[in-house]
Amino acid sequence: MFRIIKSVPKCLFGKGSFNQLGDLLEEKRINDDSCFVFLVDDCFKNKPIEKKIPLKRADYIIWVNVDNEPKTFVVDSIRDQIKNSKEGIPAAVIGIGGGSILDYAKAVSVMLTNNGSSSLYQGLNLAKNQGVYHIGIPTLSGTGAEVSMTAVLTGPEKKLGIKGEFTPFDLIVLDPELIYDAPKNQRFYTGMDSYIHNVESLNGIYKNCISESYAIQSQALCREVFLNDNITREEADEKLMVSSYFGGLSIGHSEVGVCHALSYGLSYVLDFHHGIANCIAFNQLEDIYGPAVRDFHTMVEKHKIDIPFGISKGLTLEQFEKMAITAFGLDHMWRHAFGLDWAKHVSKEKIIDWYKRM
Amino acid sequence: MFRIIKSVPKCLFGKGSFNQLGDLLEEKRINDDSCFVFLVDDCFKNKPIEKKIPLKRADYIIWVNVDNEPKTFVVDSIRDQIKNSKEGIPAAVIGIGGGSILDYAKAVSVMLTNNGSSSLYQGLNLAKNQGVYHIGIPTLSGTGAEVSMTAVLTGPEKKLGIKGEFTPFDLIVLDPELIYDAPKNQRFYTGMDSYIHNVESLNGIYKNCISESYAIQSQALCREVFLNDNITREEADEKLMVSSYFGGLSIGHSEVGVCHALSYGLSYVLDFHHGIANCIAFNQLEDIYGPAVRDFHTMVEKHKIDIPFGISKGLTLEQFEKMAITAFGLDHMWRHAFGLDWAKHVSKEKIIDWYKRM
Repeated sequence: MFRIIKSVPKCLFGKGSFNQLGDLLEEKRINDDSCFVFLVDDCFKNKPIEKKIPLKRADYIIWVNVDNEPKTFVVDSIRDQIKNSKEGIPAAVIGIGGGSILDYAKAVSVMLTNNGSSSLYQGLNLAKNQGVYHIGIPTLSGTGAEVSMTAVLTGPEKKLGIKGEFTPFDLIVLDPELIYDAPKNQRFYTGMDSYIHNVESLNGIYKNCISESYAIQSQALCREVFLNDNITREEADEKLMVSSYFGGLSIGHSEVGVCHALSYGLSYVLDFHHGIANCIAFNQLEDIYGPAVRDFHTMVEKHKIDIPFGISKGLTLEQFEKMAITAFGLDHMWRHAFGLDWAKHVSKEKIIDWYKRM
Repeated sequence: MFRIIKSVPKCLFGKGSFNQLGDLLEEKRINDDSCFVFLVDDCFKNKPIEKKIPLKRADYIIWVNVDNEPKTFVVDSIRDQIKNSKEGIPAAVIGIGGGSILDYAKAVSVMLTNNGSSSLYQGLNLAKNQGVYHIGIPTLSGTGAEVSMTAVLTGPEKKLGIKGEFTPFDLIVLDPELIYDAPKNQRFYTGMDSYIHNVESLNGIYKNCISESYAIQSQALCREVFLNDNITREEADEKLMVSSYFGGLSIGHSEVGVCHALSYGLSYVLDFHHGIANCIAFNQLEDIYGPAVRDFHTMVEKHKIDIPFGISKGLTLEQFEKMAITAFGLDHMWRHAFGLDWAKHVSKEKIIDWYKRM
């Protein structure tokens, strides 16, 4: 049985393409009363990007704080705020930010047309109704959230995505100018998400010619961005943006692996953001992903990045146990990495050993 | 101004994936009376593939002859046949064949919901109504027709595609098993369409980081298929299928160039099929695409392929003139290849000179 891979049907790419957003949106305005809701990372309040958001008529911005990983209760609260507004259900939801904001936008779009808490929809194809038209505009590159079928959320019981054919954006706007101002460390952590996607995609049983082709090219771009001394920042931003796009498509056609499973545990229990959690885990996975981890170390040194180390010190047994349960439960990732008999290779004890290295 | 690139939103890929078509279609059956129309290359009549087509209820096959390049009057006639059938407008149109069949399926889908002759819609975004749900299933790889926004048609006045956001397939099924039986020469000519797409995409002003990334990877796959001695036929079929897919996406984000412009003239006037017309033209374009043409010559020799030569002998002045007018009129291709001031580099005389080499 092969899976149908749903990807984003429309893409606008190019430096400055964000400036076309206003015109694009007008075509989507159903009538004079219909409005657009922009979910925007609150770090952009009073920043140049705020002024460029093309608000017209009753359109409005909801500033979203993403100091913590996306949570189901936040999705529910944004959804309720929109539904209870006098404008009602908008003609489109537009997410402007990093992976967390993009995941919020995808989840809110779906939850505007599906009843109950978003925590009920954590899993595969649980939403029954098509969401509101939604547009993704990344301001950080690497997560692949702009093309993925998943809105990753932490709920009361688990960190697991709302995944299905209604989740992907209807349109993405990839404007490399928007990632120019990202802080250095954050840019690196997020960029490494793409690097790690490719390593994991290429090393597992769900690999196929399409996922491999995307991963090879995405990885080549990522290596240019982080290992080539002669690349301009402008070129690097374009390449990082496309690396993220291709890395996300590669994962869509394949699966993530050991690093993401461990990273989910770190985020769930210690609330590390996804990018940095990946880096903390990948940093210690030379036994699994050998040369790719050594190259990662080179990139870290070259860009003088701080990867937190020693985070397991002082954790309680209960915390280790909870992280291990979270990671162990992601059986699709382990299956990809170790094969159908993955349980012979991985146990909660083994997972705790990995965490103790970090 | 950047263009929105519409691509195929859903893809099913894998050896044997065609066998899942029946189940996929049932989800699309609107009610007991709704039916599916399969447009199938008539070379598959009484061949194994015919038995694998999942006909149920009132579903039926229209066998389509593609000895000649797709014509607008054939599109109109298939459309009328379907509309006048007792089943009426189908729930889906499924094209099974090479690029010509895929283009017919795309065009028929659009023409079932837009009035008048398809020749009225040759151009960009001329169709106003969304077409019938349509699925593309290639049995030859290289054209990129499975992902393109264009259904290339020859009409009474010109060879030009119906291009727009309603043209791309809603779903493609990429099953490498289906290209296994393609005749050697045809497989090569069609495969070279992808090779040439990549060369043209990479050499022109509309190149960007996405089109380039697709072209680089597509080209690497194509070179493995046609230059690597140690590849199995099974691997080669997978790679050729993905090369075609990526090559088509590359062109979608960029543009074709000199070879395609000349090739359109050959097809319009002499009715050469697109793949072989490309090969005839590319064979003589070392002055434009240097090393890529020399590698093409190596592939031709290695696979002992016949590329027609001397086709311009015996042509009338009028035929040359008509070919040159067709080619010269494709200004977007020339603009891509030579820049905004392309008309300084290209004239009808120059085009006729190229044709005289062939």
